[in-house]
Amino acid sequence: MVIKEISNRRSVREYLEKEVTDKDIIEIIKAGQFAPTARNNRAVEFVVVENQKTKDEIFEIVGQEFVKQAKVLIIPVTDTTKTNCSMQDLAVASENMLLQATALGVGSVWKNLKSEFNEAEQIKKLLGIPEQYTAINIIPLGYPKEKPVAHDDKDFDAGKIHREKW
Amino acid sequence: MVIKEISNRRSVREYLEKEVTDKDIIEIIKAGQFAPTARNNRAVEFVVVENQKTKDEIFEIVGQEFVKQAKVLIIPVTDTTKTNCSMQDLAVASENMLLQATALGVGSVWKNLKSEFNEAEQIKKLLGIPEQYTAINIIPLGYPKEKPVAHDDKDFDAGKIHREKW
Repeated sequence: MVIKEISNRRSVREYLEKEVTDKDIIEIIKAGQFAPTARNNRAVEFVVVENQKTKDEIFEIVGQEFVKQAKVLIIPVTDTTKTNCSMQDLAVASENMLLQATALGVGSVWKNLKSEFNEAEQIKKLLGIPEQYTAINIIPLGYPKEKPVAHDDKDFDAGKIHREKW
Repeated sequence: MVIKEISNRRSVREYLEKEVTDKDIIEIIKAGQFAPTARNNRAVEFVVVENQKTKDEIFEIVGQEFVKQAKVLIIPVTDTTKTNCSMQDLAVASENMLLQATALGVGSVWKNLKSEFNEAEQIKKLLGIPEQYTAINIIPLGYPKEKPVAHDDKDFDAGKIHREKW
């Protein structure tokens, strides 16, 4: 059941040296491609970075050590000429990837791109991503150094459920 | 494995008369609560509407027959004073709910709220949701009238994967 992966998905920022296989990378991206998109536009694409020099350059833009330490970085992007819900489309594709990574034992975290520092624009330039595409985050992948603590019922708050009205 | 629910999750807009149990509603919202939020703000809350009159009133605002035919409507909202990534937070919580609904055999669909018609504002007013909260969509729930076709490898496009650079 999906609740297992939903509960086990936690932000992982420290990774083992072990490589993430190409097969796993493809399975993770497939999960992203099967996410819903607004009016089924299916415009989300994926840039996969494994080259250390490029990861270092991305680190220079966005900071945070885990960006260069991760084995793989996936940057989901979408074509703004094909969707008017780019942020939603990229977010749900990202969540599917985080869940599929979890299912494969691969750690990950949503690294947000800060619009106030034009981080997405800088990354697009670095990776040669066409102007009309937009990005909101980076999905680093690597095997977790420590097993993260899963969500359980103590993280569930019934007080956040409102019946019929607020 | 989560890929099963990710593949089986399809937009369902026609529902059986069968009720969605309260237990299932709670399990679906729990999945939404376990989604990541920006800087772990955990500000997402959930309004559950089952009253037919209220569903009819929501239909008057957003249109689309399935809104009044669904057994349950869940409107996820978040507190804009606690997150600057409200759209992302709501989107990933929604995707988790769609996946958990799928796991339970419950059909669902992402019904977007159109900002150009102030649909979220009208729904907030109808349901008494405080000003600082924002909504982006409605998640209708009901048992599917027809079994939807799952995603499979024909929906996977390797051409959307770019290695190292675009």
